[in-house]
Amino acid sequence: MALIVQKFGGTSVGDANRIRHVAQRIVATHNAGNQVAAVVSAMGQSTDELVDLAGEVSDNSYPREMDMLLTAGERISMALLAMAIQDLGVPALSLTGSQAGILTTANHGQAEIIGIRADRVRDGLDHGRIVIVAGFQGFSPDSRDITTLGRGGSDATAVALAAALGADVCEIYTDVDGVFTADPRLIPDATMLPEISFAEMLELAGAGTGVLMARSVEFGRRYQIPIHVRSSFHEREGTWVKETTMEEPIVRGVAYETNDAKVTIHGVPDQPGVAARVFEPLAEAGVNVDMIVQNVSTAGTTDISFTVAKSQAEMARTVTEVVAAGMRAGGVDVDTEIAKVSLVGAGMKTELGIAGRMFRILADHAINIEMISTSPIRISCVVRGRDVDAAVRSLHDGFALGDPTKEAAQ
Amino acid sequence: MALIVQKFGGTSVGDANRIRHVAQRIVATHNAGNQVAAVVSAMGQSTDELVDLAGEVSDNSYPREMDMLLTAGERISMALLAMAIQDLGVPALSLTGSQAGILTTANHGQAEIIGIRADRVRDGLDHGRIVIVAGFQGFSPDSRDITTLGRGGSDATAVALAAALGADVCEIYTDVDGVFTADPRLIPDATMLPEISFAEMLELAGAGTGVLMARSVEFGRRYQIPIHVRSSFHEREGTWVKETTMEEPIVRGVAYETNDAKVTIHGVPDQPGVAARVFEPLAEAGVNVDMIVQNVSTAGTTDISFTVAKSQAEMARTVTEVVAAGMRAGGVDVDTEIAKVSLVGAGMKTELGIAGRMFRILADHAINIEMISTSPIRISCVVRGRDVDAAVRSLHDGFALGDPTKEAAQ
Repeated sequence: MALIVQKFGGTSVGDANRIRHVAQRIVATHNAGNQVAAVVSAMGQSTDELVDLAGEVSDNSYPREMDMLLTAGERISMALLAMAIQDLGVPALSLTGSQAGILTTANHGQAEIIGIRADRVRDGLDHGRIVIVAGFQGFSPDSRDITTLGRGGSDATAVALAAALGADVCEIYTDVDGVFTADPRLIPDATMLPEISFAEMLELAGAGTGVLMARSVEFGRRYQIPIHVRSSFHEREGTWVKETTMEEPIVRGVAYETNDAKVTIHGVPDQPGVAARVFEPLAEAGVNVDMIVQNVSTAGTTDISFTVAKSQAEMARTVTEVVAAGMRAGGVDVDTEIAKVSLVGAGMKTELGIAGRMFRILADHAINIEMISTSPIRISCVVRGRDVDAAVRSLHDGFALGDPTKEAAQ
Repeated sequence: MALIVQKFGGTSVGDANRIRHVAQRIVATHNAGNQVAAVVSAMGQSTDELVDLAGEVSDNSYPREMDMLLTAGERISMALLAMAIQDLGVPALSLTGSQAGILTTANHGQAEIIGIRADRVRDGLDHGRIVIVAGFQGFSPDSRDITTLGRGGSDATAVALAAALGADVCEIYTDVDGVFTADPRLIPDATMLPEISFAEMLELAGAGTGVLMARSVEFGRRYQIPIHVRSSFHEREGTWVKETTMEEPIVRGVAYETNDAKVTIHGVPDQPGVAARVFEPLAEAGVNVDMIVQNVSTAGTTDISFTVAKSQAEMARTVTEVVAAGMRAGGVDVDTEIAKVSLVGAGMKTELGIAGRMFRILADHAINIEMISTSPIRISCVVRGRDVDAAVRSLHDGFALGDPTKEAAQ
């Protein structure tokens, strides 16, 4: 008997039919002799609808009350799912984040999980029940308030709960088959990876692969809970994210991100402390900086470029213009027409020459590289936004990541 | 400084505009120097929509999960209301039934309030906040589950909370001006009662006056919390329900109920124990019996008639037919074309002849009386359904309950 945590997103429980379908899936796992705890998101677009409703009532932001409002969403889906499961003859129990003991910081809207008191979930499982837990939500013991976990919160709930229960696996059900060598919508012969390490998955998530967010992967890595990313539409296995023991391939996949903007400060005096004067105020303003590049100094001045999320680009411009004026720099440019292309693979850290090969492939396709950033297992290049498809395709081909059988079929 | 509990129903918070309007009302009370706790129902028809959604998922009844589902409704309205209040510059805090310490029995769908641990509400009020409490919902300390209170639950929450806080008044905001001598939709010159005793209000509620349900009045009576039933559309005072000290008028008002059915068992052997054999199985089947009349025996047999809610009429028929067969009675009739008309007034218990006058007035209007039941301060008659308007009107006129100024205006 295994203990399995299964997570179903909003699309999987979008209407009554889909809820019944998910119920069948969970009950099949239970009837195969496993203990199952299911983590569920709010139905379809219901969270967005609640956000809109709040916008109708008020133009202001009230994070505590927004969390109170949004947590109604999972309450609805989890209760309905528990009904559908019981229709199939298995006792089920739905628990809110608070009832399931999901303890978080008091930081409304983007609370962090600080611990899980899983007694009630475990008690339900030990009594032969399927336990449904609301994703995305928790309870702050400090403020005694209901909190939400922000983007990717339901995945985080699932992996953290799996860790607290000592589950054998955390299954993340999604609308794709698994994790691919590149986005299959863009690259038809992209190959699904049967297995990937936590470290590689973290880099892919950070580089724009949306299947699983970094915070969930981090939980899995820390507590060594295998995460199985798989389709909710069929029974085939997907991608296992886990500590791999096998020899790893050099390059695992190509990821891209088109939601970034590039900010450049021209003519910055090249002297100590300049970088701090730029990036401290950005951090204070809550702007999340990704890549940073400082050019070689020419005639005593240099250019500093960095990337931020497009949604924070205007905030970054405002802060940076003040800083630039203060240091008598030349001026600030914000460029939203960029994209980031990344190559990820644990084998890179021992294999030399991957970066050079990557740059050569891009050059051969007349794709200009504007910024570069690297980690031991990742190389990212900023390119023009219009070049992103060609960049991903050329790298995927150039590193022979495609499935030859699919290639032949085209 | 007074401590005031204000309750707003689903219609009052039906959309964003109405929520802002309710917020203004609450803030005005607060800014006049009062402490305010507001109890709020789910928005408009949202509870019905959730019930429909459950019906799409499952044909079966899962009371625990249904309560989990339905309590999403108040969660939404209370969070939105707290936002709207804070927009007006007053700190506000929304609390679920559980957070507000509303302790109930574990009887899902119709839980009873067994106590209120109001510390958190009081703490919020003492910190200058307006505290919003979800109506209709509570928490069972025995099962550790979320419960709902059934029909009239939000009013019950409000009055019980007022009792626990030792509030000066519990204001019930509604879409009518107050409690009238008769239904103003039926009787244009019906008079609003500025004041009515708990006992009279209990009888009116039991006799079909829908403004306030008996369970809330009972709470008010037990803890001596004045209840002020008033309109959410204007500022004028409505009806105060409280322990009256003044001389009471003989007749306070006329109520009617058209949702009852009459069940008759013919030819019942007139012997000891017969009534128990009929009504014990009905109670076991959960059928709520209102009036009971047993005719004088003729030739060793008698007829027993009783009224039940129309929604329970078929259940009552099934149970009663089994019983009737078992005691070799004549047969069972179910009549859904009836109505109950009641005269209520605390003065009746000392004033003789009210019943006779009531029967005379109905006879003068050719209205046949099919059943009669009385309490010290109420007389109820079952009549044909088609006669109900005429019965209410003739009694309202006959006991001179109308407002002479309105009468003249017609």
